[in-house]
Formats: sequence, structure tokens, C-alpha cells
Amino acid sequence: MIGRWDIFELSAQGPQSGNPFTGPQLKGVFRSSQEEKTVSGFYDGEGRFVIRFMPSFEGEYTYRVEGDFLPEPLQGTFFVGSPSEDSHGPVRVRNRYHFAYEDGKPYYSVGTTCYVWELQDDVMVEKTLETLSKGTFNKIRFCIFPKHYAYNLHEPRSYPYKGTPMDSSVLTKANFFAYGPDSAGNQWDYTAFNPEHFRHIEKCIAALRDRNIEADLILFHPYDRWGFSAMSREDDERYLEYVIARFAAFRNVWWSLANEYDLIRSKTKEDWEHIGSFIRSKDPYGHLRSIHNCMPFYDHSAPWITHASIQRQDIYKTAELTGEWRERWQKPVVLDEIAYEGTIQYGWGDLTGEEMLRRFWEAACRGGYPGHGETIPDENEKLWWSHGGELHGESWKRFRFLREIMEMTPGIGLRTSDMQEWDDVVAEPEEEKYRGSYYLCYYSFMRPSFREFRFDNGTVYKAYVIDTWNMTREYAGTFSGSFIVPLKARQYMAVQLIAEGEYRKPTPPRIPKLIES
Amino acid sequence: MIGRWDIFELSAQGPQSGNPFTGPQLKGVFRSSQEEKTVSGFYDGEGRFVIRFMPSFEGEYTYRVEGDFLPEPLQGTFFVGSPSEDSHGPVRVRNRYHFAYEDGKPYYSVGTTCYVWELQDDVMVEKTLETLSKGTFNKIRFCIFPKHYAYNLHEPRSYPYKGTPMDSSVLTKANFFAYGPDSAGNQWDYTAFNPEHFRHIEKCIAALRDRNIEADLILFHPYDRWGFSAMSREDDERYLEYVIARFAAFRNVWWSLANEYDLIRSKTKEDWEHIGSFIRSKDPYGHLRSIHNCMPFYDHSAPWITHASIQRQDIYKTAELTGEWRERWQKPVVLDEIAYEGTIQYGWGDLTGEEMLRRFWEAACRGGYPGHGETIPDENEKLWWSHGGELHGESWKRFRFLREIMEMTPGIGLRTSDMQEWDDVVAEPEEEKYRGSYYLCYYSFMRPSFREFRFDNGTVYKAYVIDTWNMTREYAGTFSGSFIVPLKARQYMAVQLIAEGEYRKPTPPRIPKLIES
Repeated sequence: MIGRWDIFELSAQGPQSGNPFTGPQLKGVFRSSQEEKTVSGFYDGEGRFVIRFMPSFEGEYTYRVEGDFLPEPLQGTFFVGSPSEDSHGPVRVRNRYHFAYEDGKPYYSVGTTCYVWELQDDVMVEKTLETLSKGTFNKIRFCIFPKHYAYNLHEPRSYPYKGTPMDSSVLTKANFFAYGPDSAGNQWDYTAFNPEHFRHIEKCIAALRDRNIEADLILFHPYDRWGFSAMSREDDERYLEYVIARFAAFRNVWWSLANEYDLIRSKTKEDWEHIGSFIRSKDPYGHLRSIHNCMPFYDHSAPWITHASIQRQDIYKTAELTGEWRERWQKPVVLDEIAYEGTIQYGWGDLTGEEMLRRFWEAACRGGYPGHGETIPDENEKLWWSHGGELHGESWKRFRFLREIMEMTPGIGLRTSDMQEWDDVVAEPEEEKYRGSYYLCYYSFMRPSFREFRFDNGTVYKAYVIDTWNMTREYAGTFSGSFIVPLKARQYMAVQLIAEGEYRKPTPPRIPKLIES
Repeated sequence: MIGRWDIFELSAQGPQSGNPFTGPQLKGVFRSSQEEKTVSGFYDGEGRFVIRFMPSFEGEYTYRVEGDFLPEPLQGTFFVGSPSEDSHGPVRVRNRYHFAYEDGKPYYSVGTTCYVWELQDDVMVEKTLETLSKGTFNKIRFCIFPKHYAYNLHEPRSYPYKGTPMDSSVLTKANFFAYGPDSAGNQWDYTAFNPEHFRHIEKCIAALRDRNIEADLILFHPYDRWGFSAMSREDDERYLEYVIARFAAFRNVWWSLANEYDLIRSKTKEDWEHIGSFIRSKDPYGHLRSIHNCMPFYDHSAPWITHASIQRQDIYKTAELTGEWRERWQKPVVLDEIAYEGTIQYGWGDLTGEEMLRRFWEAACRGGYPGHGETIPDENEKLWWSHGGELHGESWKRFRFLREIMEMTPGIGLRTSDMQEWDDVVAEPEEEKYRGSYYLCYYSFMRPSFREFRFDNGTVYKAYVIDTWNMTREYAGTFSGSFIVPLKARQYMAVQLIAEGEYRKPTPPRIPKLIES
């Protein structure tokens, strides 16, 4: 017996002659009283053909798996029990701008980026998983293909295809910019996958799942000296089918079509639309799908996109624009890149911990979902942002506190409240029935010594003063009507107001008569 | 003998009967071989009629002063010598976006705001002048009319008109918003000035002049419970003529038509255009003129406006927009309000010193002129921003260092360089002939551990690393071509590059191939 949203897997030996990757695969139909799914298998090397299925319901399932090379279909029955305690199913969009697991538990995304953590050596991968076990993050964004860029000139642990890479001994810190997808010396057979590469990534996805972390898989990216970003459409489709057949049965998978789609010169908008629709049609489970930009945003209103995956366009105003992006695309906004805490030479990787945390709160209080990255090189020039390992910064220690506050939201999700004035960030529950019951007011880089509140709804609020940096939450009194909450004249403070008993929606303030002086 | 740009003053006794403020005044013509100016006088009370003149040249002047009540014109000769060491004349616009004193000395404006410092008691005024003697600021923005607002409920030391104010004992912290220019109980004779009020302000203007500080006089403002912001056009004109006759001969005067023009409900765009043109036509010396906004910017392309006086519209992106504003109005940009260092309850007055200083450098390196204010209440709820006194913050201590760096600019003024990339702020001299000779690169809130420079101009640069917060400037080496400057992974750092010997303009970098990762 397996649990709901676990993986049911079958395998069969088949022919190794010819190219088993491009030949016939297993194909199965899985049925219960509540669903019926047709699923494709994949070739795992050494004559082993595999098929995987994730049941979305409890109860009895039957299956029928066919394969040209099978003497007769595999048929049988299995029973799906209740999910294990930590299993809540795939993450879905809820309340238009938010997420919940399939079982209804709210999912407040607090992500990080480690582009190729899983392609480092075993010691490093183990270290990363240890760091991730601390429960800081519930999403991690990483690539299936290896990465070529500053601090990323070494060979990955494995390649996705059979063949040989270009000679990397020619690379230097100064010349690596000259190498791209068309670099000479790469010899790949795009019809023959390297199962070991994918098997290892699967192990990593499973390890993330066991830590309640979503695996936001980046399918294509431009930081490439091998050519994987510039394959033909046929090769892309073969790759996507293989990835879906192997990974889609993991409940914690998200599809990120690209990191910085616009820097992949060989793909057009039409290519991305094709890839998006292709994944949508092939993935039996409807995992979340998005695409991440460098400069111009992708048009996230495309029907195959479930949420906006954002890289900020401006270096000053980043998470502050969450509301605009929600409006524009009417979808959840995941700020996968709002620059990273770090000390490197690039403007995308040299934020203080304070500024990274500030952007997190700005995004969260505006009803968006912030993402982290860390670019503080260790003595071997390894950086969390790409290699994983240990975290050396300050912001990450403070994200769980933020998530705990987020999880206090009545219903699912926050939005900007009409009670917001020009000089604060005021969040309220997304769900209308809770309006007036809860406010989270954030003061960002400002440091007022107190703030004045004016409610006309008669509701009685318990007020808590939150120091987002020092992670304290102190009871400040119970109030209604007009009242003052003292704030210590420190940066990164918030006030949380929680209705006691009955509540009503207040009338928002008019634009203050004198906003300035 | 007086010095160039000093004040030549004559007075005569006249009739006290009727209303001497509205009756005939002295009128004079002042002539030298290089200029001829017609100037109006004013009534100073107790039968004393005064006329003032500021000579813009050295040499012999003759004058002829008439007045209806004089038996015959006053005529004579005086000699204007060289200016005293600290006297450089009125500040003028130079190089389109910048300023210089009339004698050509560059003027890098570093202003502050103390709205009614001069209307406090003698002890406080003295304390403010003592603070200003430290040489931090070379401009101060303040009002001729008293101010009514939070922290400003008490009576001023004097009123500009004869009459009586409303009873201020009715005011409380909670109800003061309810009082405006139409409040009951004010009884003023707008045809009869209170010379003592203006005489005192003159003393203050002179005290500023003697400290090399420009007096940016705010003529109208909305924070008013007395009615001075809602007078008739006739009353406004009488007031402006009086102010010009009294103050225009001070070389350090600037005219700010309004603080937050858009909050003065009783004046229209047409009124402001009229006032602007009126001042332009009446002021014999062409002092600088602007008008300051609360929400919508004034259209600073108006011909009577010499420079844009800006209050930022956004709480996050402020000084960073200096370049846009320069482009829009093709005039100097003075950021008179980019929020203040403080701890009060309002978002315009609760910045840290670090953030205030960061905005200063952002503005300065983009070829604009930043302004300060401080809202840290002392034990008597007095704040520099309005009352003057002592400074309690941290940013002001670091402005002279900034000005010293600014004064190292070859020629007059900085502008954004084509060498600027997406993640730095790079300034170069405004004057074309100096391009390639000097760069000031600022890293703002970012904290790179080093930066890479790539020049193709063959120029040899001495590099200095500047810590804008700790006020250090350290020699980092002499370089040309591609080189690296280490930066300590701290916030608020800058790199200054000064050409050694011959220099050429380099080719700007293309948009970096890979700006992000």
C-alpha cells in the first residue's frame, strides 16, 4: 500500500538493441472510482523500462500497462491509503493570487535559488540537504542542465546526454563570457539520455519532498557552454517527455520553463508558447508552470502559466511592485529573483541581509511570494546561489519567523488593504469574509517611533509589535477606534492587529489632508 | 565704500499719516559704467522709508532716489570695491543643470529645511545659527509666514501683519487638523506690515549670508491657521513687493514661491504663473526662482522657473530619479524634500541617517542637488526640520565630506556617464571637454567586495576608494584598461577615478551580455 500522492512505480525489462530511448515505452492507464489517468513511462538504461503514477485519491486503483515489447500488458490492483503526516499533495493555485496544497493546507511560498546544487559532488549535495533540513525554505529553484557562468566553470557531476563536453581547461575567469551554446568541441547524442543524471536528480527531488520542499525545476537556461539551450524542437520535446515521465509523479515538482528566457537567443516567443502548451498537455498532474525573465517580463497571462515567476526589473523598486504584478496578470506572484544577499561584484548578488529580509516582508505583505538566494563565496568560491552547501548570510535565519506570521492569516493569502496609507504597507486577508478581522502593517526601512490607527468599525483589536529582524512579537495592548502603537524608532518593524470576537470592515481613510510637511 | 554684491542702503524720514505702507515709496536709479538698475524702496515703520541696492560690479556708482514726500531727489556717488573673501555673488544657473556663484565659483548645493527656525525665540535662533556655523549646509529653506502643523502649534515670535491671531489655546494635538486658513478669530490688516517681523528675518538672512548659506525663502505655504495662504491677489502682490524691496538686495536670497503649492487650495495654476512672472519682473537681480510640490510636480518648464525644486513622489525611489527630472525640465534639479532623517510617526520624517546620506549621494552622483531635514524631537518636542536648534542625527556630519568630493569635479557639475552599467551609479563631468578625465562611481545600498572596470581609452587613472559613511578616501592604485578595485563588501562605497595626464573619452560598455544569473 502507498499513501495518497506517493508514487506507484512499475518496471519491466525490454530490449537494449537500437536506441531504447526513442523506441516504444511503457504506457499505462491507472483507474480508481475517482480518476483515470493515462501515463507514459521512460527508459532507465540497462534494459529497464519504468512507469510511474501519482494517485490523487485514496482507495483501490487498477492499472493496465502496455509496451510493444511486453508479451502481454501488466495488469493489477493496488490500494492507496491516507497520506503520510507531512504529505498534503501538489501545490495548487488558490484564491487567484495564492497557493494551497491539494488537501487545502495553505502554502506560503518562501523559496530559495540554488541553480545546480544537485550537480555538485556527494559531499556538497549532502551538505545542502542538511542546510535545507533546517526548515527555512519550502521551495527551491534549480536547473536540470548544468550551469556555465562566473563561479561556475567546473564540470558538473554528470551530463544529461551521452557524449562528451568541450574541453573546459581553456576556460578562465576572464574569457568564460566568450563561450556559449555554440562552443566548439561538444559532442552529444540528443537521442540518448544519461539515466544516471536523471536518477540522481530524482533522488534529490525525493529528498526535497521528504523535507516538505517544492522542487521548482528549471527546464532551460542560457548559462550554457554545451548547447543544451539551443537544441532543435524535436530534441526539446524528447527531453520534456523524458523529464515529465520521470519527474511528474513527484508531488513536489513545479515546472519553470526557463531561467531568464529572454537570454536564450535561439528560442522565440512561439517556442516558449509551444513548450508551455506541450508541458501542460503532457503532465498528467497539472503541476504549477511558469517562466522566469531577465529583462522583459514574459506575458504571464498566457493560459498555460499558473503563476508569475518574477525577476525584478529595477534595482531599487523590487518587491514593492508586487501589487502591480498581481493586477497585471491576475495570478500568484512569485518573486524568484529580487537580488540575493551577498558580497560579489554584481549588483544582483550584493544585498545585505537586512535588505533581503526587507524585500521578503514587502512582498509577503503585498500578497506575493518572495524568493531568496545567497552569494557569499566560501573559501573555495562556492556560493549557495549555485552550489548549495552552507548558508553564511543573515536573512535566511529570519524567514521561518516570517512564514509563521504568514500562517496566522485568516483563510488563505494576504492582499493590500484599502486601509493602507501612503507611508505604510498594510495587508489584510484575501478572503472577503475575513476583511476587518486582521491587519499586518509593515514599516519597511522607515523607523517611526509610533503609529496612529483610526478605525471606525467598532472592532476590538489585539495589537502586537513585530520586530522582523530580531524576530520578536510583543503584545502592545487591546484597542478600538483611534489609538497609538509605540514602535521603538527601529527599522523593519510591523504591527499585527487581530480582531477579538466580532469584526466589521472599516471605512478606509481618505487621502490624509496633510500628507507632508 | 562697500564691496561688490554688498548692500548700499539709503533711508529718509517721511509721513506717518495715512497708511505709509500703501502710499508712495522711495524709488531709485543706480548707475555705473556697467549697469543701470531701477529699484523700489519700502516703509520700515516710524516714518522711516528705506531703499536698498546690490551692485553687481566694482567701480563708481551714482544714484538718484525720488519720493513724493522728498523735497528733492537724493543724489550721490559711491564706490564699490572688490568683494570680501567669502563673497562670490548671487548663485546663478550654469551648464544648464548646475549652479555657480556670479564670480564663477562652482556652487554645489547641500541644503537643509528648517521651516520656521527664524520665528523661534532668540535663544533658539542663536542655537540654529551656531549649528549652521559648522559649515554643513550652504542652503537653508524656510518660510516668511509662520507654520501651523504637528509639532508646530505654538505662536511664532511675530506676525507679518498688524492685527491679532485666532486664539491658539483651543488647539490640541488631536484637533489641529481642523484649523486652516479660514479659521475664525484672525484679524489682520493686510495693508499694514509688521516691520519688526521682516527686520528680524533680514537679520537672519544676513547671518546666513555671513555663513555662506543661501536663504531659500518660501513665500507661501499651506500649513496655515491664520489666512496668509489665502489672501487676495492684490494682497499677495503687496506682500511680494514688500518682500522684494526688503530682501532682494541680499545676494544670498532665492525665491521659493511655495512649499507644497498643490496643498494651497485657494491658488490656481494661473495664480502661480502670475506670481512667478510678477517676481521675475520685480526682482532687479534675477535671484533663483522655483516652486515646491507635495504630490503633483509643478511644470518646471515655465520660463520664470530657474530650477526644479522637488519633493519626491514615491517613498522608495527618490533621488534615483534625478536623471529623469533633469531630462524632463532641462534645468538644475534641487531635491528639497526626499524625506528627512528622523523618528516621528510620519513616513516623510523617519529615515535613518544612512538612508538620508544614501539619497544624498544618489542625487549628487546623478547631477542633482540633495536637501536634508531632521525630525528627531528633543525633550521639548522641538525638531530641526521646523524649529532649528541642534542636530541630533547622523547624516549631516557626512555632508561636508560629500561636498568636498563634489568640489573635486573638473569644471562645473556632474552628470550620469554612458559608462554607467545597470548596477552602479557613474558620474562624469558635465562639461564635454573633461569627459574621460574623471569618474565617480557609487554603489549605494549594495556591497560588492570588488568591482571590475574596463576602459579602452588608454587613459591612466588614479583610483580612490571612498567610504561615504565613514568618510575615508583611500588610494587604491593607478590603472588603465581592465582592472579590479577591491571594495570591502560594505554599503555606501564609491570609487573615484582621476585621470593622470592626458585623457580620452572611452567607448561605453555594451549592455553586458550576461547581466544576471
